[in-house]
Amino acid sequence: MRIVVLAGGIGGARFLRGLKQAAPDADVTVIGNTGDDIHLFGLKVCPDLDTVMYTLGGGINEEQGWGRTDETFQVKAELAAYGVGPGWFGLGDRDFATHIVRTQMLGAGYPLSAVTEALCARWQPGVRLLPMSDDRIETHVAVDVDGERKAVHFQEYWVRMRASVDAKAVVPVGADQAKPAPGVLEAVAAADVILFPPSNPVVSIGTILAVPGIREAIAEAGVPVVGLSPIVGDAPVRGMADKVLAAIGVEATAAAVALHYGSGLLDGWLVDTVDAGAVPEIEGAGIRSRAVPLMMTDVDAAAEMAREALKLAEEVRA
Amino acid sequence: MRIVVLAGGIGGARFLRGLKQAAPDADVTVIGNTGDDIHLFGLKVCPDLDTVMYTLGGGINEEQGWGRTDETFQVKAELAAYGVGPGWFGLGDRDFATHIVRTQMLGAGYPLSAVTEALCARWQPGVRLLPMSDDRIETHVAVDVDGERKAVHFQEYWVRMRASVDAKAVVPVGADQAKPAPGVLEAVAAADVILFPPSNPVVSIGTILAVPGIREAIAEAGVPVVGLSPIVGDAPVRGMADKVLAAIGVEATAAAVALHYGSGLLDGWLVDTVDAGAVPEIEGAGIRSRAVPLMMTDVDAAAEMAREALKLAEEVRA
Repeated sequence: MRIVVLAGGIGGARFLRGLKQAAPDADVTVIGNTGDDIHLFGLKVCPDLDTVMYTLGGGINEEQGWGRTDETFQVKAELAAYGVGPGWFGLGDRDFATHIVRTQMLGAGYPLSAVTEALCARWQPGVRLLPMSDDRIETHVAVDVDGERKAVHFQEYWVRMRASVDAKAVVPVGADQAKPAPGVLEAVAAADVILFPPSNPVVSIGTILAVPGIREAIAEAGVPVVGLSPIVGDAPVRGMADKVLAAIGVEATAAAVALHYGSGLLDGWLVDTVDAGAVPEIEGAGIRSRAVPLMMTDVDAAAEMAREALKLAEEVRA
Repeated sequence: MRIVVLAGGIGGARFLRGLKQAAPDADVTVIGNTGDDIHLFGLKVCPDLDTVMYTLGGGINEEQGWGRTDETFQVKAELAAYGVGPGWFGLGDRDFATHIVRTQMLGAGYPLSAVTEALCARWQPGVRLLPMSDDRIETHVAVDVDGERKAVHFQEYWVRMRASVDAKAVVPVGADQAKPAPGVLEAVAAADVILFPPSNPVVSIGTILAVPGIREAIAEAGVPVVGLSPIVGDAPVRGMADKVLAAIGVEATAAAVALHYGSGLLDGWLVDTVDAGAVPEIEGAGIRSRAVPLMMTDVDAAAEMAREALKLAEEVRA
């Protein structure tokens, strides 16, 4: 079975780990979000790709969900001693090595997709990890600060400001000129099922869908497209998805996110058992829906969610 | 008193520390060798500039003479795990931060001289540290490997091969097209005395002198130029200077090095007491010479050497 998964960071990575346990023989291609990529200290940092790679490769810091295990912070401390910032982005020494290798390869002319493949040769994530695009796309967030509207990089909004002010708009800068990375459209066209993990519908999956051609390829693939709600009981399972949902005028509810994707894209939608009441509304909009536990408390729970998603996909197909 | 010092790495740095103790009120400008600079992992590494900066700024690893104190090697281990080399160049985590800042600033368009000034703002070395040039110069060494002549970067010859084969030629690639960095010629013209520390006469001081204009400016400065022999008792005090001296046809003796510089450049030359017998030959060539202890066993010993060098300069002037 060929499965294509659109993934952001922590939620996508943990779901993928469950999927690998639930469907060990499946051929999984991950289309990773690169809209939250950022240049720091002259280095290219791809937080979502790395979170997927480290999580599936066994190098993730389990507690925080991103970054490396057994991490140290000598480089960061030295950069601070030089007065070089930003200090709000927590890059550890082990993590720095990944960004150094990536930046060196990009500088040598390799596209991000080739670099990602090279990095994965070490981590052996057990999936084919593709960036959504080899072109530079940066998600910017419009905010009002001291009465003035300004645009900040998504990481600045998310990490430095901790989404403490309203997002007035979310713009994947560069997306309209970008092309899907080699292999992305081919994987979608060859898929037996396409899954949207409980990743952020705006700044993760929404950004992937903003790359011209990807949304259309998924809609026209003719295979079940099933998603899992990142909203449980009217609040994001993790992160601050409600903030960026508000920016695009979507309520932070399991049903509203499903309707935002719409029946033109989505065939099935899993909501948490606490949101079982939303199932009729979602089904009324032409999207098959089931209520199952959606808290990824451990790998087994994530695997059970993956099994439910695949089951719903088979129902859709039938 | 305005003193200009041409410096390589460890020998130059330790001499400078002595000079600062011997002449605390002097205005010292250091013209640093950049011929051993190397790009590693996409980062610009300037070993000699950093050794001077760390040594005078209190961050040097005292035992090995280069690199940072309290160093760790997480980044290096991770790069090795990615299969990215070279592994023979020992960059520590703290040191990496310096190269990251430097590379970022160079990428932003700052010349190396401005970058060096910015890095020194942290280290406060107590001297004005100038790279010999803002232009890229790389010392290459011609060697015969398996019967074939090839050119290797100086660092590869020195660090990886440990100078274990004969150097057939030493070429400061790019030097002929290079210009002295801003401030270099001005400092030489304004100097009251110019010193050559016991640095390598070929790949450190020789490379600085290979930048068009620097040798001429020193020769025409009209102030005492005094050097200290890096050769004691027919062997280099440290390093493998004999190997590169042989490549340019110069014997590894205190006298031969003095004559290599020549009386057109050099006014005074200190040799170690074990080489006192060489003084007449050096003086016969028109270079005033004294035999004094030249082993930099500690800062006091280096300070005493600096005092002797300044004393010889005053003798020359008188």
